[in-house]
Amino acid sequence: MARIVMKFGGTSMAGVERIRAVAERVKREVDAGNQVAVVVSAMAGETDRLVAFCREVSPLYDPREYDVVVASGEQVTSGLLAISLQAIGVPARSWMGWQLPIRTSDGHGSARIAEIDTATLDAALAEGKVAVIPGFQGVAAGERVTTLGRGGSDTSAVAVAAAMKADRCDIYTDVDGVYTTDPRIVPRARKLQKITYEEMLELASVGAKVLQTRSVGLAMKEKVRLQVLSSFDDRPGTMIVGDEEVDNMERQLITGIAHDKNEAKITLTDVPDRPGAVASIFAPLADGNINVDMIVQNIAHDTGSTDVTFTVPSVELARSLDLLDKAKAAIGFTRMVHDTNVSKITIVGVGMKSHAGVAAKMFKTLGDRGINIQAITTSEIKVSVLIEEDYTELAVRVLHTAYGLDAEQVAA
Amino acid sequence: MARIVMKFGGTSMAGVERIRAVAERVKREVDAGNQVAVVVSAMAGETDRLVAFCREVSPLYDPREYDVVVASGEQVTSGLLAISLQAIGVPARSWMGWQLPIRTSDGHGSARIAEIDTATLDAALAEGKVAVIPGFQGVAAGERVTTLGRGGSDTSAVAVAAAMKADRCDIYTDVDGVYTTDPRIVPRARKLQKITYEEMLELASVGAKVLQTRSVGLAMKEKVRLQVLSSFDDRPGTMIVGDEEVDNMERQLITGIAHDKNEAKITLTDVPDRPGAVASIFAPLADGNINVDMIVQNIAHDTGSTDVTFTVPSVELARSLDLLDKAKAAIGFTRMVHDTNVSKITIVGVGMKSHAGVAAKMFKTLGDRGINIQAITTSEIKVSVLIEEDYTELAVRVLHTAYGLDAEQVAA
Repeated sequence: MARIVMKFGGTSMAGVERIRAVAERVKREVDAGNQVAVVVSAMAGETDRLVAFCREVSPLYDPREYDVVVASGEQVTSGLLAISLQAIGVPARSWMGWQLPIRTSDGHGSARIAEIDTATLDAALAEGKVAVIPGFQGVAAGERVTTLGRGGSDTSAVAVAAAMKADRCDIYTDVDGVYTTDPRIVPRARKLQKITYEEMLELASVGAKVLQTRSVGLAMKEKVRLQVLSSFDDRPGTMIVGDEEVDNMERQLITGIAHDKNEAKITLTDVPDRPGAVASIFAPLADGNINVDMIVQNIAHDTGSTDVTFTVPSVELARSLDLLDKAKAAIGFTRMVHDTNVSKITIVGVGMKSHAGVAAKMFKTLGDRGINIQAITTSEIKVSVLIEEDYTELAVRVLHTAYGLDAEQVAA
Repeated sequence: MARIVMKFGGTSMAGVERIRAVAERVKREVDAGNQVAVVVSAMAGETDRLVAFCREVSPLYDPREYDVVVASGEQVTSGLLAISLQAIGVPARSWMGWQLPIRTSDGHGSARIAEIDTATLDAALAEGKVAVIPGFQGVAAGERVTTLGRGGSDTSAVAVAAAMKADRCDIYTDVDGVYTTDPRIVPRARKLQKITYEEMLELASVGAKVLQTRSVGLAMKEKVRLQVLSSFDDRPGTMIVGDEEVDNMERQLITGIAHDKNEAKITLTDVPDRPGAVASIFAPLADGNINVDMIVQNIAHDTGSTDVTFTVPSVELARSLDLLDKAKAAIGFTRMVHDTNVSKITIVGVGMKSHAGVAAKMFKTLGDRGINIQAITTSEIKVSVLIEEDYTELAVRVLHTAYGLDAEQVAA
């Protein structure tokens, strides 16, 4: 007997027929003798509808009232799944965030889970009941409803799994696992059987939209064994586990390749080459809550000034340019140039910790195809490069082949 | 300064534009120096959508989970109205049923309000805040969400008004008051300035769908001054008040005329004319929770048997016939005849308590037009007759004129 948390996303809950299918899948785990808690998202499109209502009423909405409105989507699917489970003979009950309770910070709209009281859940599971829990929601001090921010249901599921000491947290979604790269770009992309938390974190944060980044970080911290799998077929998915669970023999040098077209490049020319100059660029952006990603400081001109290049999220470009323009005198640059026609390509793999030459291979592979690298950032387990956006797919494909990830190559 | 509860129905809350209009109307009461609590319904159509989901998932749904699902509609409009009020500078906050709390029985799906804790409301109103409260919902022992049954938001509003000792409870709806009869049938129908609780109760229960019957009964018991008025114009509505508030001089003999096409007539022939025979008819119907309305027992034949005629709601006709058929041997009737082509016409007026001849005038007026009366029931302040459905509109019109209710007649 295992304790399992099953989480179903919006496409899995979109309508009565699909909710019935979810109930059948939950029943199979129950019939196998497992204790099960289910965390559900709102029906696909519902949260968007509710958010749109709030914005339409007032762009400057009170986030506490916004939370009351948008938390309702998961309330509906929780009740419907409980009814659906009962209808096929599985004892079940829903518990809203405030009923358990799932305590969160008071950061309405993007609250963080502080504590989950599991006494009620433990008792229900011990009685053989399935507990149905709305994702995305909780309750803050003062008994006000909170939500965790978009995609927060993944985090709810991991937090419930951690609190309940579940043996596994299965995230059911509309893809059947984590792939070496986007199969729409590389048809030979392979589904991974296992991936480490760290690798998944890097992939999640650079645009492989399988799991919310926060949920992976929490799973890593709390050592929750995660599985990503499809609600629409029965094949096993991808396990996301600690480094120690991955056999060295089966480890690839590179686990996956991600791309992200949502960055914009800004270059400031002739920034004075003196202490504090770079800080004067990034302080106003940090104050504006803009997340600067890649930073390249070019070699100083003999004029005693440098060019500084960095990237920001595309959606923040206009605001970034505005903030920098206001700080022009303080920074002392001459010109500001920007480019949204860029793409970030990232190779991720725990294996590169112990192997030299991984980055060099990346640069050479891209260079051989005439792809120019505009910026580089690295961490222990990833290398990211910024290239011209038009080369995105080509770059992903040649790297996928170069690191031996293509399906046929592995099978051979 | 007065304390006012304002209640807005589903058509008033149907969409962002209308919610904004509701906020403006609330603001006017606040600007006039009043303390205001607002009770809201779900957007028009939303509760139907949610109920349909539950029924589709399982016709035998758990009413506790059904309540979780359907209570969400009012949660959404409460949050949106609070945002909308804040956007025009009116301090406001929503409180769900479980947050106040509004304590109810555990009769999920049709719970009864037991107690409303007003400490929070009193404090909010004293601070100049508008309290927004979802109608239709509450919380039972064990902190489970309940709903009051369809139309329950009117009852929520009256209960809040009673608990808060409000000076008035204004029910905003899509009609602008209570009329002497349905204006679609009688264009000369007049809007009433005042009507007593008792009269309104009779009119509400016979099909004048302005207010939920339960809410009127509660208002009468708790002496809450009710007003029915339109959310779509600014004219005063109809006040529903105690008998003592109606000036005898302005009192009409008959206040209003209602009709109800949703009854069906059943006749059992040759029922043995012995003690207990009639009880044997109605016991199985009562056990089946079927509400029998009008009953006529014909004069005994010289055979020692009688015909018994009565009405049930049309929607319960099939079930009634089935229950009676099963009890045929016990009752001992010969034939069972039914007729859905009937209509109940009711005249209501406190004035008839002190005036004789009111019923006689009704029978004569209908008889003069060749309208046959199939059954009669009376109470202190009403007379109902059952007639052939095709004569419904004619009957209402001739009675409206006969009792001097036509608009021109009064103005003359």
